[in-house]
Amino acid sequence: MRSVSIIGAGITPFGVRPESAVRLGAEACRTAMEDAGIGPDRVEAFFLGNFAGHAFMGQNHLAPMVAHAAGLGPVPCTRAEGACASGGLAMRQGVLAIASGAVDVVLVAGVEKMTGAATGETAQILAAAGDYESEASIGATFPALFALIARRHMHEYGTTREDMARVAVKNHAHGYLNPGAHLQIKITLEEVLGSRPVADPICLLDCSPISDGAAAVVLCPGEMAADLHPKPIRVLASAQASDAPALSDKSDITRFQSTCRAAEEAFRRAGMQPEDIDLAEVHDCFTIAEIMALEDIGFYRKGEGGRGACEGETALGGAMPVNASGGLKAKGHPVGATGVAQICEIALQLRGDAGPHQVPGAEVGLAHNLGGSGATCAVHILASGA
Amino acid sequence: MRSVSIIGAGITPFGVRPESAVRLGAEACRTAMEDAGIGPDRVEAFFLGNFAGHAFMGQNHLAPMVAHAAGLGPVPCTRAEGACASGGLAMRQGVLAIASGAVDVVLVAGVEKMTGAATGETAQILAAAGDYESEASIGATFPALFALIARRHMHEYGTTREDMARVAVKNHAHGYLNPGAHLQIKITLEEVLGSRPVADPICLLDCSPISDGAAAVVLCPGEMAADLHPKPIRVLASAQASDAPALSDKSDITRFQSTCRAAEEAFRRAGMQPEDIDLAEVHDCFTIAEIMALEDIGFYRKGEGGRGACEGETALGGAMPVNASGGLKAKGHPVGATGVAQICEIALQLRGDAGPHQVPGAEVGLAHNLGGSGATCAVHILASGA
Repeated sequence: MRSVSIIGAGITPFGVRPESAVRLGAEACRTAMEDAGIGPDRVEAFFLGNFAGHAFMGQNHLAPMVAHAAGLGPVPCTRAEGACASGGLAMRQGVLAIASGAVDVVLVAGVEKMTGAATGETAQILAAAGDYESEASIGATFPALFALIARRHMHEYGTTREDMARVAVKNHAHGYLNPGAHLQIKITLEEVLGSRPVADPICLLDCSPISDGAAAVVLCPGEMAADLHPKPIRVLASAQASDAPALSDKSDITRFQSTCRAAEEAFRRAGMQPEDIDLAEVHDCFTIAEIMALEDIGFYRKGEGGRGACEGETALGGAMPVNASGGLKAKGHPVGATGVAQICEIALQLRGDAGPHQVPGAEVGLAHNLGGSGATCAVHILASGA
Repeated sequence: MRSVSIIGAGITPFGVRPESAVRLGAEACRTAMEDAGIGPDRVEAFFLGNFAGHAFMGQNHLAPMVAHAAGLGPVPCTRAEGACASGGLAMRQGVLAIASGAVDVVLVAGVEKMTGAATGETAQILAAAGDYESEASIGATFPALFALIARRHMHEYGTTREDMARVAVKNHAHGYLNPGAHLQIKITLEEVLGSRPVADPICLLDCSPISDGAAAVVLCPGEMAADLHPKPIRVLASAQASDAPALSDKSDITRFQSTCRAAEEAFRRAGMQPEDIDLAEVHDCFTIAEIMALEDIGFYRKGEGGRGACEGETALGGAMPVNASGGLKAKGHPVGATGVAQICEIALQLRGDAGPHQVPGAEVGLAHNLGGSGATCAVHILASGA
C-alpha cells in the first residue's frame, strides 16, 4: 500500500457556536488548507465525518455542502457515518483513497452542530447510534448504556467511582491549557463525585459535553509530503473494526472487542507495541470509556486502566499522556468532528505545535475513536518525520 | 490501481415491505454472498449506502447493524451517504478499499426503508438532500426543484411533456417484465399526461415511487475473480464528481455538471466512448432526469435526450436499452439501495441472468447514480469476462 502523510491540520474552537454545520466545516477546511499551504484547487477528493446533521438541523448530504462552502472544485465528496466514530471513518476513507492510487491530495473533515436542539431531543438523536429496537426504543440512552458498562467494570475489577472521577479531573486540567477546548475549567475530585447523578454510577462530570465544532486534515502520498510541508506527519497505520451493536449481544461488556481488534491491527501494521506510543487521544465520551480504552488498546492489563489517571501516568508530564487536549471530556465532543480532531491533535503534538498542552519530544501518537457502545472503532497511529 | 470484479449480486424485491432496514439489508447481503458462493466469514470489509435511516426509523449507525444481522465478523463497517447517490458512493468506497490493497473480499450494500412515514414527512426527509437554507426551508421539495429544471429544459430545447411521458411509458413497460419491480404495471402516454399534477410540468406518473428495498454486491480483486465465480464482471471504471448543491448556485440547470464530469472520467478510465456501451441504468428519479442523464453522459447531444424514448432507441430491443430493469420510475427508488441495485442489474445483464428483461448479448454496461439535484454523481462502467 502507498504510504500517506498529513500535511495540514485545522480545528475550530469547540463549544456553543452560532454557525451552521456547513460554515463550521468550511472554517476547519480553510484552516487545514492554509496550514498545508495549498489552495482548494489542489484538493482531489473530500471525505466528511458527520453523525446526525439531518436530525440536528434538517441537512443531510452534507459533504458537497461543506466542500462548496470551502471553495473546493467539483471533486468527489463523500460523507462517512459510524456514529461517534464518523470522523475516524472519514480519515480512513481518505487514507484508502490515496493508498488506492486514485487521488493524491485529499481533504478530510468532521463536523457536528449539536447545541441547537433541546436536551431531551439531543439524547434521543444520540441514542440512534445504538440498537434502536432493543435500546433506544425503550429509553436506553447512552449515559444509561455506559452506566451498565461502568457498573459491571466496577463489579468485575474493583474499579471505583474515584478511579473514574480522576479521569475527569485529569482531562479538565489538560483542557484548561487548550484555548480551543469547550470546557476550559479545572475541576476537583470532590466536584466530580458530588455532581448531579445522570445514570448511576455516572454523574454529570463523568460525561463529555454537547458541543459544536469541526476539524480537518490534508493528506497526501508519503513521497510528496516533504515537498509540501516542513513538518509532515506519517500515517503508520489506519485500522477499523466492528462489534455487535447491542449490549445484549456482547459476551463481555467490560471490553469493546472493536477497540481490541482495531488496536491489534494498527500495532501490527505499524510494527509497534503499546509501549512505543508517546501519547494518545482516546475516546472518553464517559470517564469509564477512557479506562476501558487504555485496557482494550493494551496500555494497561484488563481491570487496571484506572491506574493511569490515579497514578499520574496518563497526565501531562506522565509517562504517556492521554487526552492532552482535554479529550472529549473537556475539549468537547461534536460527534462527527471528534475523530478528525483527535488526528489533528496528535499531528500538532508530533510537530511540536500543540501550544500550552504540548507533550515535549513526542514522536509517535495514537488516536482511538469509538462509535456507539463499541459497534465501530477506528485506530490510527501517526509518527513525526517524512 | 488493482482491478476489481463483481462476483455476487442480490436484490430484494422492491415495494412496500414490512421488514426493517436492518432486515432488508441483511436479506440482500445474504443473497449476494450466496450468489458469490462465499460465507460471511470471507468478507473483510462492509460498505453500506443509506440516506436517511435515522429520519425514517430512528436508526443511525446502520452499517454494523446490517453487518451483524447478515452474520459478518467484526470487520470494518462504513456507511456512505450522498443523498440518492449513497449506493453509488458505497460501491466506490468498496472499489477503492480493494484497489488500495487493504482488503480482498468486500461486501457492498444499499438499503432504504421509506414507506413507514407519512407522505408529507417523506417529502420533508427527502428535501434534506438539497440545500436546506435556500431550498428545503422555504418548501422547495424535490418535485418542485425538478419542475424548475424541466421547465427550463423545455424552454431551452423544445423538450415536450410528451417526451417526458414517453420515458415513463418505456420504463413501466420494462418494469412490467421485472418480477422484483415495485410497479409492475404498464401505463399509456395518455395516463401519464392525465395523471395528477405534482409540480407543473411534473405529474404523478413522471415521479419515481417511494419504495422499500435493498441490494448488495460482492467484490474481489480481478485476479481472484475467475476462481470464485463462473461469470465474474469487471469494474472498468468507478468515477464520482460533485457540483454546487443549490439550484441557485448553478450556471445552467439544464445539465448536471457532476454527471458530465463523472461520465467523462469513467469513459477515460475505461478507455471507451458512449457508443461502446450496450445498456445503461440511469437515475430517472423524474422523467426529465433520464432525458438529462442521456445528454450529460454523452449518449445524446444536449437537448436531444427526449429522442431516446420517443424513437425507441432506449427501449428493450432498441440500440441501447436504458433502464431495462424499469429504472427508479417503475422498479422503485429505495434511496440508499438504488445505486447498488443499478450495479446489480448491470452485472446480472452482463452475465445473461437478468430474466424476462434480459438485453441479449450485452457486454458493457453503465450505471449512473445521482444525489440531490446533482450535487453528487457516481458513474460505473462494467464489462463481462474475467
